[in-house]
Amino acid sequence: MALALDLLGVFFFALSGSLLAARRQFDLVGSLLLASLTGLGGGVIRDLVLGVTPIAFSSPVYLAPPLLATLVVFFLHARVERLGKPLLVFDAAGLGLFCTTGAIKALDLGMNPVAAAVLGVTTGVGGGLLRDVVANRDPQLFDTRDLYAIPAMLGAGLVTLAWVLGWSSVWVTLAVAMLVFLLRILSLRFRWVAPHAVLRPRAE
Amino acid sequence: MALALDLLGVFFFALSGSLLAARRQFDLVGSLLLASLTGLGGGVIRDLVLGVTPIAFSSPVYLAPPLLATLVVFFLHARVERLGKPLLVFDAAGLGLFCTTGAIKALDLGMNPVAAAVLGVTTGVGGGLLRDVVANRDPQLFDTRDLYAIPAMLGAGLVTLAWVLGWSSVWVTLAVAMLVFLLRILSLRFRWVAPHAVLRPRAE
Amino acid sequence: MALALDLLGVFFFALSGSLLAARRQFDLVGSLLLASLTGLGGGVIRDLVLGVTPIAFSSPVYLAPPLLATLVVFFLHARVERLGKPLLVFDAAGLGLFCTTGAIKALDLGMNPVAAAVLGVTTGVGGGLLRDVVANRDPQLFDTRDLYAIPAMLGAGLVTLAWVLGWSSVWVTLAVAMLVFLLRILSLRFRWVAPHAVLRPRAE
Repeated sequence: MALALDLLGVFFFALSGSLLAARRQFDLVGSLLLASLTGLGGGVIRDLVLGVTPIAFSSPVYLAPPLLATLVVFFLHARVERLGKPLLVFDAAGLGLFCTTGAIKALDLGMNPVAAAVLGVTTGVGGGLLRDVVANRDPQLFDTRDLYAIPAMLGAGLVTLAWVLGWSSVWVTLAVAMLVFLLRILSLRFRWVAPHAVLRPRAE
Repeated sequence: MALALDLLGVFFFALSGSLLAARRQFDLVGSLLLASLTGLGGGVIRDLVLGVTPIAFSSPVYLAPPLLATLVVFFLHARVERLGKPLLVFDAAGLGLFCTTGAIKALDLGMNPVAAAVLGVTTGVGGGLLRDVVANRDPQLFDTRDLYAIPAMLGAGLVTLAWVLGWSSVWVTLAVAMLVFLLRILSLRFRWVAPHAVLRPRAE
Repeated sequence: MALALDLLGVFFFALSGSLLAARRQFDLVGSLLLASLTGLGGGVIRDLVLGVTPIAFSSPVYLAPPLLATLVVFFLHARVERLGKPLLVFDAAGLGLFCTTGAIKALDLGMNPVAAAVLGVTTGVGGGLLRDVVANRDPQLFDTRDLYAIPAMLGAGLVTLAWVLGWSSVWVTLAVAMLVFLLRILSLRFRWVAPHAVLRPRAE
């Protein structure tokens, strides 16, 4: 069940990677590579920090979601695009799943709660950041027209709190992941923003 | 002999880094840094995934090829450029050597064959990807006017297959590396391309 | 005391990250993320290469400097900017501290001297490189109008030499860090430059 959630997160991020590849007119192989980097990159960073073999390499089943995402975009691109802003939606779903499952994996491997929450956020934003850096565009993570990292921080914090209190379960993880997804989508819809980096920015 | 192949791969990638530095009007130190990142980056990623100390750090001899490449470009830039598209040629040679030696090292350290082939591709494309990301340009890896990842996938797959069948040797590795190099060069010459990321792209 | 120096280095680099975030009109969360990546990124790379849990994750106190830097820029941006070129100055201070403490940590963990010096340089330039890559701008590291890597190489080399000779101490580290800082600042002030990557560049 935990594996299913993790693979689902990989699939959503991989879809966002393949959709960006399609928008950038990449070829099929570029689509597969960007899907893999986006879907698996956050988890690889998490596992390297945890000092374990990255699960994307130890379990070949993790290669299935990027392959599937590449094929979905190849055959069904027009239909997927008709869903409206699909890159943002799938990215939000991946964010919700990864910031929660990332924190739980860190806690299970003995990380202290603060570091586990930070690593959950890192896992959540890592894949998308790599996608945007490699595709040479401004990272979504730093877009100031909506909230991206705050839902991830809240989600990683909540599952860590539940773990410390002994309430951790797959259902709690799933519920928090959906909350993160909803907050991210609502922030896009209603243009919720965070304060500017400077209290009183001067006109420049 | 395996060490010699690996150092040769570092040298070729390092040359591509120094040539890009020269084209970008970097200074001599920037040339050395970009040569090192390009030549050693793929192997560092490979070794971190494998959980061993990156060989670029444990064996100081690995610093020699980037130094040599920087000096070659410094003193002989005009002659090297006269070879015609040298950045692409040296990059192709590095790709051939790294996708094969990377897979073999992963297999020798006990990785499963699928992961070893994926890690071979990662080693092959990693250094060049870092080079292009750091130099703030669109990665060659995603260029749709020729084949880049497909030769690497084929090469990593072939040496992995040979290893599984018990046919692995330095000569097999070298032959497959040359095949990858040839495919890459031929794809540049004859403009072989992969299918687009979307089956029926709409005009946008 | 060694911890204090390291936290100070994190703080200086984090300030440079938050200042870049402010210049780029990022929001407060983006400022915190860029401060964290810049301040902690070099050390995370160093610790992954050394095969230990990145200290930014094992010791939560490392999260304090990026938080503090974000608040300083939020409340006191105008005053900090009045110092003149603060991004360059804080970046130089971080460079001095990290290239020296990075090399010392590598030596303490048993790395050979050559690799330790290289890892010191990597630690010093890593955080700023990540900052510039993620903010999608040309890395300061490759700016040819002043010296960046040379002071770092000299600093990492000097503390390594002192360690080999048995003269290593926190005061030596601090003195060398200040020397690196001074060289970097003087190279900015007096426009010291390194030779071009090519001996006789052709007009292109």
